[in-house]
Amino acid sequence: MVLHDFLPSGNGYKIRLLCACLGLNVTLKEYDITKGETRTEAFLALSPNGKIPVLELDNGDVLSESNAILLYLAEQHASLLLPTDLITKATIYKWLFWEQYSHEPNIAAVRFWLTHNAMNELKEQMLPDRVQQGNAALQLMDDTLKKQTFLIGDIISLADICLFAYTHVAEEGGAYQLSDFPNIQRWIKTIESQDWFIPITQR
Amino acid sequence: MVLHDFLPSGNGYKIRLLCACLGLNVTLKEYDITKGETRTEAFLALSPNGKIPVLELDNGDVLSESNAILLYLAEQHASLLLPTDLITKATIYKWLFWEQYSHEPNIAAVRFWLTHNAMNELKEQMLPDRVQQGNAALQLMDDTLKKQTFLIGDIISLADICLFAYTHVAEEGGAYQLSDFPNIQRWIKTIESQDWFIPITQR
Repeated sequence: MVLHDFLPSGNGYKIRLLCACLGLNVTLKEYDITKGETRTEAFLALSPNGKIPVLELDNGDVLSESNAILLYLAEQHASLLLPTDLITKATIYKWLFWEQYSHEPNIAAVRFWLTHNAMNELKEQMLPDRVQQGNAALQLMDDTLKKQTFLIGDIISLADICLFAYTHVAEEGGAYQLSDFPNIQRWIKTIESQDWFIPITQR
Repeated sequence: MVLHDFLPSGNGYKIRLLCACLGLNVTLKEYDITKGETRTEAFLALSPNGKIPVLELDNGDVLSESNAILLYLAEQHASLLLPTDLITKATIYKWLFWEQYSHEPNIAAVRFWLTHNAMNELKEQMLPDRVQQGNAALQLMDDTLKKQTFLIGDIISLADICLFAYTHVAEEGGAYQLSDFPNIQRWIKTIESQDWFIPITQR
């Protein structure tokens, strides 16, 4: 399998982390999204949405949307990270959709703006609302993790792999302080202590 | 089952439409989100994210995030709208995540702003970029539907139920013109002609 990716991307890292957990070999093909490398004709032919990550399977099938790829790999390998009980699965789906709608635009996008010199006047005006919503998202996670070890209960799941990616680097750029969320900090340490763990910087 | 919902919401309508297709009885409990009715203590106890739709099952379990609820109901009823082939499922997941990240914030949010007197100076400035991205999203759908009847091929799926909801009302508020997207218009008519179809206004 080939993962078309940009190393600092949390969306890409989710997949790298899941592959590490499942023991899957994946070849990384890197693109610099800040230089338009995912807007070329060749990349758009691979994925018309023009976004990494994209997973190219050995048979040539091409999958996009990070959380769709997580679900595919977990199902294909019958991973315990995605239990078969339908209510538990629905809870995992909930976290994955919530991540894309209520977490990523506020935490990942703001991190990107602030660490890639992507601020402008309009983004400056949008920032306070994004940070407020991002802190609300982190608070919701922290409240959940106050009651239990992981996001769906006391077992690690795809929801943790998904949410870990951008949460553990939320401080980059300076908009968020994880010290405000002690239960998230404890959860991050628990994930980092798994024997299959790899950091976001590891190719 | 009780669906906690707001009638004009496309996210709620997805679930009403799927229930109609599957022949499921669901009791509607309506909230006016413009009057803060989903921010009360009672609602937040039901769903800490403070958003409709929420599906309360007969056993008391509570599900949130519209697309998570779609996947749950389709799996529970082994619906042909969610085929079991893993690559086909991954394609459906892709459309569902793409809807929440690349379609809803540009098309549904803009419709809400313009039809609920929710504009302000900042949103006026954000509008051109949102509309540009919304038109790009509609174009991607139209390009797909130029080649095939439905979003994943020639069979209707959960991806169509999901994307139909906000796409067919995209013109409300005046930001989008569906006449620019003839393949989407044909697809809308095809879905509206299904014998289980119900309109967004139907309780």
